[in-house]
Amino acid sequence: MLLSKEQLDRYREDGFLLVESALDEREVTALRDAFARDCEVPGPQRVVEEDGTRVRAVYASHQRQPEFAGLTRDARVLQPVRQLLTDDVYVYQFKINAKPAFGGERWSWHQDYVAWRVADALPAPRQVNVGVLLDDVNEFNGPVIFVPGSHRAGLVRDDRSDAARSEQHLDPDDIALSPEQLEAMVSSHGMTSPKGPAGSLVFFSPEIVHGSAPNMSPFPRRLLLMTYNDTANLPSWAGEPRPEYVVCRDTTPLRPLDGPFLDRAGHVPALEGAAL
Amino acid sequence: MLLSKEQLDRYREDGFLLVESALDEREVTALRDAFARDCEVPGPQRVVEEDGTRVRAVYASHQRQPEFAGLTRDARVLQPVRQLLTDDVYVYQFKINAKPAFGGERWSWHQDYVAWRVADALPAPRQVNVGVLLDDVNEFNGPVIFVPGSHRAGLVRDDRSDAARSEQHLDPDDIALSPEQLEAMVSSHGMTSPKGPAGSLVFFSPEIVHGSAPNMSPFPRRLLLMTYNDTANLPSWAGEPRPEYVVCRDTTPLRPLDGPFLDRAGHVPALEGAAL
Repeated sequence: MLLSKEQLDRYREDGFLLVESALDEREVTALRDAFARDCEVPGPQRVVEEDGTRVRAVYASHQRQPEFAGLTRDARVLQPVRQLLTDDVYVYQFKINAKPAFGGERWSWHQDYVAWRVADALPAPRQVNVGVLLDDVNEFNGPVIFVPGSHRAGLVRDDRSDAARSEQHLDPDDIALSPEQLEAMVSSHGMTSPKGPAGSLVFFSPEIVHGSAPNMSPFPRRLLLMTYNDTANLPSWAGEPRPEYVVCRDTTPLRPLDGPFLDRAGHVPALEGAAL
Repeated sequence: MLLSKEQLDRYREDGFLLVESALDEREVTALRDAFARDCEVPGPQRVVEEDGTRVRAVYASHQRQPEFAGLTRDARVLQPVRQLLTDDVYVYQFKINAKPAFGGERWSWHQDYVAWRVADALPAPRQVNVGVLLDDVNEFNGPVIFVPGSHRAGLVRDDRSDAARSEQHLDPDDIALSPEQLEAMVSSHGMTSPKGPAGSLVFFSPEIVHGSAPNMSPFPRRLLLMTYNDTANLPSWAGEPRPEYVVCRDTTPLRPLDGPFLDRAGHVPALEGAAL
């Protein structure tokens, strides 16, 4: 899948782009099943809710489940990322957020790249995020909210505070925009939240200001997030690096699959080899 | 203003009805100014946020500010209420909620009448609520969310627990629907939230299931709420009655003004007399 010139322009202008129903129902079901499987794998990559039972997020599922490994290279995802960024990209971070019914944390308004620069010394905002809706997203179940065009202002909060720097898992509050900063942003740009059926994709900039409302609905809302980084823009650490499940170490440039990821997932050993 | 047959049918069917821009800009400004004035009046009718400074809600402003006294009798509000309920109605409760930027509490899913039956022994759900949007309401600033048609099921949670009964100010959590109850409701009815410009009116049933998301925006969102009750359906208390600012004691049937409330607000003494 290649983005049209109009789509590319819209991404540059707004800082995000919604592609509805890029994946079909069978594919979404397979990804949900793979997520359920991955939620059973114990380890620090699995973050549970305060109640200790429900899984809130899982990192690096593409290192364990062949469906996700395939997805990271599916042409519908990877081709647009290469158009938007550069030919040589790899997965810097992979996570799935399960926002439970009636809640889920509310994320403060922030820009992703602030966190990555502080935590991983990423030299430049040479990333593209891809969100994959694993459930239908509507205004009630905690959609991501963007301030469209806010990425064009660069970093609003240029924070290298010790509070943020010391965290292995960055707390969004540590990198949150101030009320005054957000008020100015929203006054000129407004707010918008892409919604769509499960299987839709949202490409978005590492510099776009965004937040997320709680899930007011009685149904969970699962969102898969892949961050691709330019292989010429690698992280480095003066002290302890962040764990490998948070910041992936395999920086081999990814090449698109020649067919949909599910058709290839049956051939896992041939497909992924040592990368799994 | 009289509601059309189609509007009346929609209220019966959905449990709520949105009338956009019923009040004009000048009227909205006057109401906002009156609210700001009323926020300065000390007393238990003024509820402040946990930070102790910002006002979260004010009760019974129509007993202090002539604009609100007039509004309760404005034909655009009172005539529809009389159509929906009965000719003889009075204001049972009057409050203004100011949902501050970046927050405001999230209200659990509930039915108003459960609270009023528990707290005030109101015999029947013979009320109509009228919400007046004092700010533009959109999906981001904490709109009220309805489960349309849920009022037709009667009371889902028929709760007379001591926890709820003992509260002077009912905590919505004490009368909240369970997750299972809401899941069943939403599966069959869905969710919807009326939005519109400031000055819009939302009429809604005391039995409709509703909740409210937090305000994710950097701007406050003020909502005026008037509950009209049938004068043949009065509250009573075995023990201590709730305070007069929460449950108004003047049950004289209201008659509509013969002009917009602002044109009459200049004549306050003649208009309101002892009621102020």
